[in-house]
Amino acid sequence: MAKLLTGKEVSSAIWENLMPRIDRLRAAGVAPTLAIVRVGERPDDLSYERTATKRADTLGIAVRRFELPADATQAQLEEVVDVVNTDEAIHGCLLFRPLPVAMDERAVCDRLAPEKDIDGIGSASLAGVFAATGEGFPPATARACLETLDFYGIPVAGKRVVVLGRSLVIGRPVAMMLLARHATVTLAHSRTEDAAAHTREADIVVCATGRARAFGPEYFVPGQTVLDVGINFDDDGNLCGDVDFDAVEPLLGPEGAITPVPRGLGGVTTSVTMAHVVQTAEAGQR
Amino acid sequence: MAKLLTGKEVSSAIWENLMPRIDRLRAAGVAPTLAIVRVGERPDDLSYERTATKRADTLGIAVRRFELPADATQAQLEEVVDVVNTDEAIHGCLLFRPLPVAMDERAVCDRLAPEKDIDGIGSASLAGVFAATGEGFPPATARACLETLDFYGIPVAGKRVVVLGRSLVIGRPVAMMLLARHATVTLAHSRTEDAAAHTREADIVVCATGRARAFGPEYFVPGQTVLDVGINFDDDGNLCGDVDFDAVEPLLGPEGAITPVPRGLGGVTTSVTMAHVVQTAEAGQR
Repeated sequence: MAKLLTGKEVSSAIWENLMPRIDRLRAAGVAPTLAIVRVGERPDDLSYERTATKRADTLGIAVRRFELPADATQAQLEEVVDVVNTDEAIHGCLLFRPLPVAMDERAVCDRLAPEKDIDGIGSASLAGVFAATGEGFPPATARACLETLDFYGIPVAGKRVVVLGRSLVIGRPVAMMLLARHATVTLAHSRTEDAAAHTREADIVVCATGRARAFGPEYFVPGQTVLDVGINFDDDGNLCGDVDFDAVEPLLGPEGAITPVPRGLGGVTTSVTMAHVVQTAEAGQR
Repeated sequence: MAKLLTGKEVSSAIWENLMPRIDRLRAAGVAPTLAIVRVGERPDDLSYERTATKRADTLGIAVRRFELPADATQAQLEEVVDVVNTDEAIHGCLLFRPLPVAMDERAVCDRLAPEKDIDGIGSASLAGVFAATGEGFPPATARACLETLDFYGIPVAGKRVVVLGRSLVIGRPVAMMLLARHATVTLAHSRTEDAAAHTREADIVVCATGRARAFGPEYFVPGQTVLDVGINFDDDGNLCGDVDFDAVEPLLGPEGAITPVPRGLGGVTTSVTMAHVVQTAEAGQR
C-alpha cells in the first residue's frame, strides 16, 4: 500500500494558518473578499463556484458573484473586470475559462490586476511563475502540488520530476515552480515518444493531461510519488484522475505515495485560492 | 568527425531573408533602427556593441547609441528607456545587463515597450515565450538555437532534449521554445544529480551554463546534436564554449553534430537581433 496523500490534511493546515490572519483582517475592518466572474452556466463552472463559495463561507471570506449571459460581449466582460480591479473591497478574482470563443481570452486575462489574479491567468502572473518576478500569483493548482509535497515532507531539490502535460494552467507552471525548487524537471506530453520510459526514471510524477485513467502500471515503479491533477469522468460517469489508481497504487509500494481522486489535490487548490485572497487583503493594509 | 553547425551559413540565410525586406522599408522611407543602451563600459558590453554595430551597418540597419556612466541613477536610465519607447524612428532596443546592483533591473526591463524588446528581457516577452501570448520577442540566443536546428534540418518534434542551465536569458526560454515545437524537454542544472545520465539519453543537448569546457565526453554519446551556447574564456584567455569541444566532437561521430565556439551560435544571435528590429519596423508600417 502506497501512502495516500489526501488533500484534507493539507487544506486543514492551510486553513489553520489562514484563520487568525482573517480574524486580524476583520478586526481591522477588512473583510477578505473573493470575486467570482462567470460567463454562461457551464456545469463545471457552477460546480467549482459552489465548492469555492462553501469554502469561502467556512473561512469567513466574502464572495461577490458577477454573472454574465453566455452571449455576453467582450466589452461587457471587460467592464466587469474593471469593476473588480478598481473596487478596493475585492481582493481576488476567479474568472472561469474557457471564455466564449468570440472573446480574446488573453486580453481579458491580462486586463485583470495582477494582485487580484489569484489563479495566475494574466501575463504578469505567467511571467511571475516563469521568471520569478514576484508579480501576480501562480495558478492555484500548481501551487497546490507544491503545498502537498511540502505538507507530506516529500523533498523536491535535486529530485527527478516528470510532468505529463504542458498546459498553461498546470503543466508548465508546476514545472517552473519545481525547477525553482531545484528539481530536475522533464516536460512530457502527447507528442512524447515512450512517455513511460521517462516516468519510470522519475522520483516524482505529476499527471496533468486531463485524460481519464490514462496512466497505468507501465508508467510507474515502486517508491515513486505520484501527483494526480486530473479531474475527469470515466465512461460510467465516475469521477477519476489521470492515473489508473486501483492498478497503480499497490504497485508504488510502502515507500511510494499518491494523491487520490477525489479527496486529493482538488480541495487543496480551493484552499490555495483562499490563501491568495487573504494575501492580497493583507498586502492592501500595508 | 561530427557535422559542424557553424553559424555563418545560418546568419547568411537570415540576411538573405532580411535584405529585400530592409530595402522595401527604406524605399517606403523607414530606416530600420536599433537602439543600444549601455550603462558603464564593461568590456563584454563594448565587444558586443561593436559586433552588433558592424552587423547592423552591413545590413543597412541604423544604430543609435545611448551611453550612461556607470554611476547613472535608475531615473536617468528610465528616462532613456522612455525616449526609446516614444521615438517612432527606433524599432528595437538592446539594453546591456546586468545593470548596476543599485538599480531595480526588473522594473527597467519591464519599462521597455514589448514591441521594441528585441532581446526578450521584459515580463511581457517572458510571458510571451512561456505562454505563447504573441507579445514581445524571445531572447535572441534562444531563437538562435531554433534557427540553427532548422537551418541544418535537425528535427525537434518528438525528440528528447536536455537543456543544461536554467537561466532566464537562455535555459528556460529555449526549453519553452523547444517544448512549443513538441520536443520532450528536461531542464537540468547545478543541483541536478548525475546530469550526464540525463544528457546521454538525449537526442539534442543544449549547453548553457557559462562554465568553460564543463561538459566532457562523459556527457555525450554518438549521434547526438550538441548546441553550445557558452561564450567563456579559459584560464589561458582563449575563447571557448561550455563543451570540451576537442574531446567531444570526435565522439559524436558522423551522425552527430555540434556548434563550435567561436563561429557557432554567437553570430546567429546577432543576426536574430537584427531580424527582430526589421520585424518591428515592418509592423509599424501596417
